[in-house]
Amino acid sequence: MAVEQVLIGGQWREANHDGTFHADNPALKQPLPAQYPVSTWADVDEALAAAAVAFQEMRQMAVEKLGLFLNRFAELLDENKQALCELANQESGLPVSPRLLDVEMPRTINQLRLAAAAAVEGSWRMATIDSKAGIRSYYAGIGPVAVFGPNNFPLAFSGAAGGDFAAAIAAGNPVIVKANPAQPGTTRELTKLAFQAVQDSGLPPAAVQLIYHMPNEDGLKFVADPRLGAIGFTGSKGAGLKLKEAADKVGKPIYLELSSINPVVILPGALAERGEALATEFQTSCLMAAGQFCTNPGLVILLDDDKSAKFVDTVKAGFAGAPSGTLLDKGVEANLTQNLKLLIDAGADVEASGSGEGSSQGYTCPNTLLSTSAEKFLANPEAFQTEAFGNSSLIVKAANLNEVCAVIDSLEGNLTGTIYSDTAGSDDPAYDLVALHLRVKVGRLIDDKMPTGVAVSAAMNHGGPFPATGHPGFTAVGIPASIHRFAMLQSFDNVRPSRLPRELQNENPTGSTWRLVDGVWTTENLA
Amino acid sequence: MAVEQVLIGGQWREANHDGTFHADNPALKQPLPAQYPVSTWADVDEALAAAAVAFQEMRQMAVEKLGLFLNRFAELLDENKQALCELANQESGLPVSPRLLDVEMPRTINQLRLAAAAAVEGSWRMATIDSKAGIRSYYAGIGPVAVFGPNNFPLAFSGAAGGDFAAAIAAGNPVIVKANPAQPGTTRELTKLAFQAVQDSGLPPAAVQLIYHMPNEDGLKFVADPRLGAIGFTGSKGAGLKLKEAADKVGKPIYLELSSINPVVILPGALAERGEALATEFQTSCLMAAGQFCTNPGLVILLDDDKSAKFVDTVKAGFAGAPSGTLLDKGVEANLTQNLKLLIDAGADVEASGSGEGSSQGYTCPNTLLSTSAEKFLANPEAFQTEAFGNSSLIVKAANLNEVCAVIDSLEGNLTGTIYSDTAGSDDPAYDLVALHLRVKVGRLIDDKMPTGVAVSAAMNHGGPFPATGHPGFTAVGIPASIHRFAMLQSFDNVRPSRLPRELQNENPTGSTWRLVDGVWTTENLA
Repeated sequence: MAVEQVLIGGQWREANHDGTFHADNPALKQPLPAQYPVSTWADVDEALAAAAVAFQEMRQMAVEKLGLFLNRFAELLDENKQALCELANQESGLPVSPRLLDVEMPRTINQLRLAAAAAVEGSWRMATIDSKAGIRSYYAGIGPVAVFGPNNFPLAFSGAAGGDFAAAIAAGNPVIVKANPAQPGTTRELTKLAFQAVQDSGLPPAAVQLIYHMPNEDGLKFVADPRLGAIGFTGSKGAGLKLKEAADKVGKPIYLELSSINPVVILPGALAERGEALATEFQTSCLMAAGQFCTNPGLVILLDDDKSAKFVDTVKAGFAGAPSGTLLDKGVEANLTQNLKLLIDAGADVEASGSGEGSSQGYTCPNTLLSTSAEKFLANPEAFQTEAFGNSSLIVKAANLNEVCAVIDSLEGNLTGTIYSDTAGSDDPAYDLVALHLRVKVGRLIDDKMPTGVAVSAAMNHGGPFPATGHPGFTAVGIPASIHRFAMLQSFDNVRPSRLPRELQNENPTGSTWRLVDGVWTTENLA
Repeated sequence: MAVEQVLIGGQWREANHDGTFHADNPALKQPLPAQYPVSTWADVDEALAAAAVAFQEMRQMAVEKLGLFLNRFAELLDENKQALCELANQESGLPVSPRLLDVEMPRTINQLRLAAAAAVEGSWRMATIDSKAGIRSYYAGIGPVAVFGPNNFPLAFSGAAGGDFAAAIAAGNPVIVKANPAQPGTTRELTKLAFQAVQDSGLPPAAVQLIYHMPNEDGLKFVADPRLGAIGFTGSKGAGLKLKEAADKVGKPIYLELSSINPVVILPGALAERGEALATEFQTSCLMAAGQFCTNPGLVILLDDDKSAKFVDTVKAGFAGAPSGTLLDKGVEANLTQNLKLLIDAGADVEASGSGEGSSQGYTCPNTLLSTSAEKFLANPEAFQTEAFGNSSLIVKAANLNEVCAVIDSLEGNLTGTIYSDTAGSDDPAYDLVALHLRVKVGRLIDDKMPTGVAVSAAMNHGGPFPATGHPGFTAVGIPASIHRFAMLQSFDNVRPSRLPRELQNENPTGSTWRLVDGVWTTENLA
């Protein structure tokens, strides 16, 4: 059987490869027929060389072309969405409806269009003009970006179409897509459309390239290559930290989204007021898509009392009765099983572990609700905050608020932290204390709702302290903020006016670009 | 003799130490009398614990106190400037006048005052409000910051008063000062005044702490400690990269300013038009303060022709005739001597190496002008871009513009890159080509002036690609941009209005704070 082609330097061509791999259909636990190449360094090297040339061209190109490309790609996705979502379903087990076609594809298209608008309008560049000192600065593309997409969002976080891809392109960088090995076919089809958009919009041919897979040692070499500008990686902590080490060593910015257990604190007043509803809300959030979200509520902290006991009972029944969903691939199943065992070995009690009627026939794991005391948690916080990615969660029962805060203090960085409180105000003093501790541990603090929705908003922070991400100052979702990750700060000192980039000249480049001129944000021209 | 005291947890007290050290007077090559402790981990641990407590308090404190502190500190520096500059002179050899008292102290005071204004006004936080989605975000302090200051700016970049210090405090973080071992007395006196300002303004006592020195292995443990938020380091590449490795491993943001040779390209038209003046300008910039600036022009790239030969001849004479200045310490002398040897061993020719009348009696090295061809440079770019920090520079003679660009392409990241061109326009095509290659290699691109002045401007980028710094998106100089290094992005999703930080509430916190509200930068209240 023919091996699928890589896209390098504007050519779909046979890979230089050493071995092949295939994806599985996780809902059937069966191999999918297509064979994909494990590229040797020759492919990676050629892609890097071509990307460097493309970057040079993109730097000299009108930003309107970036907008044309991103919008054209969005349009092509829309035209081909049904087939794409069916393919993504085959490789991920995620349902076409209500998930891929109804939610994820529209989000993906929307992100690309927002990125198109941002690229052309240019306010993301934070053009700063000090007219007295004769110095002007802005953010500009950082160089070719390698994007490693995760398995849990085959479209919206795909290396070939997702948030990192859109942000990297919007900043004016070529992208080298590294496919997630669980979804090579989806990645290939997305890349085909991206490449068609490259051609339709007149971007350099190597603006988008695709490599499916490479040996681990080549991956480390790849992210440390001087021709690369930055790396975006969403995936497992193990792989991510190895890539981070290689990139850090040569000072290459690498943006990681690694793991997060997303603590949720439910205060007593909220449980008294709406405990039953909260149990349903939690269960829905935790089991949706078999819990395979980076913002899945993996840790719930409660005060140990009657109301929380009732909450746990309701959730237990729900977990035991609900069907277990399909896991994304064999690896997710193996890791979830192993990490649940690790939590149980550490002393967590199994509150619920049942697969109800209608559970998946594919990769799966029983919905699992664990619990422990804050005292036990605090005796071994490292083990107890193991991320069991999937349809599971750990309840921590604290004797008092001080223990709640101590548990929070013992946590590593997380993407989100949620606090539920009552509407009458009885929880307010407790809220203030808990929020004081939780705020610095998470990128996004949430009141009164589950963390699983991540709006594409200018004020979103889908980021947080290590190891949720590699740097707490950046977000992976939200335009324009996410674009900054793939940009360098460029200052122009005493540079003659005609030589300044358009965004830093006296005339506002679009009439609507926000610039910080002598301390004032304005869309006006410089006098 | 008594050993000097450390400042930990609001107490000047005897250090837990294992050994002592002293500084030298570099102009006399003589030891200074005071003995300073090499702290053991007990001191570092106690400082970290106290800083964590101080951070918690500072997070709940009105930002006006930060302003009070920074302004009071500036005032105290101004009142004590003569004595401070005399002490700094003793420890650095830098002249009280025209350098320390006339330039560096005013700059230091100005930076603190700018930071005070920025802290109170709050526009640096980039408050972003998405009223439709109910999400708001801003930048907030990252946690206790360790500041390692360099030896070449005893005041303006001091760990106890310089740019990193001011930025870290402005973001609301406590600072743990790690003194530069060449200037412990200056650091102690600066810290005394800072601590007085802490007391006068009501900051928590551990908002500023001082440790003089620690064993290397404790330094690595220090920067990786979970209680620390971030690190600012300005100094040698060797030490900096070791600290970076330790901090990176645990995802701790570390901002480095390591080394830079600051390429200067002088195009033929500029040499024809004003070659003599440029030779003087270059010599002044290169030998000022014995060339001990991070933006010292260490590499000059010229086309190999009659005009450049004349330029080199003029500079040669100047270098040979000018007195050699005092180097900052024994280490600078040793490194400069060694790195010049490395360059010569690599094949650089010595154009000038003489110490004229009136050279320093202290640590010193003859003013050294080296040269080589672009061909030789390109055969061994790593060796030829060795930073010989001090009163030296390397001229590279290129056969044509392509070679100029090839040399630039072979460079690592630098803080600055300068291009001189003629005013009539004959150099313009060459400028465009050279700038295209140079722009991505440097943080600040400069026309027609030497890089040694670093204005404190909102548009300044005192930063650049690795290894000039650790991340090309951040600047160490310029307020408010430099403050972002010591901040984390915090998003508030569905958080009840009364619980939002002041800067994110509907009412503008000062009436003049810039906020991005639904895509519009404004100082207005939210409707």
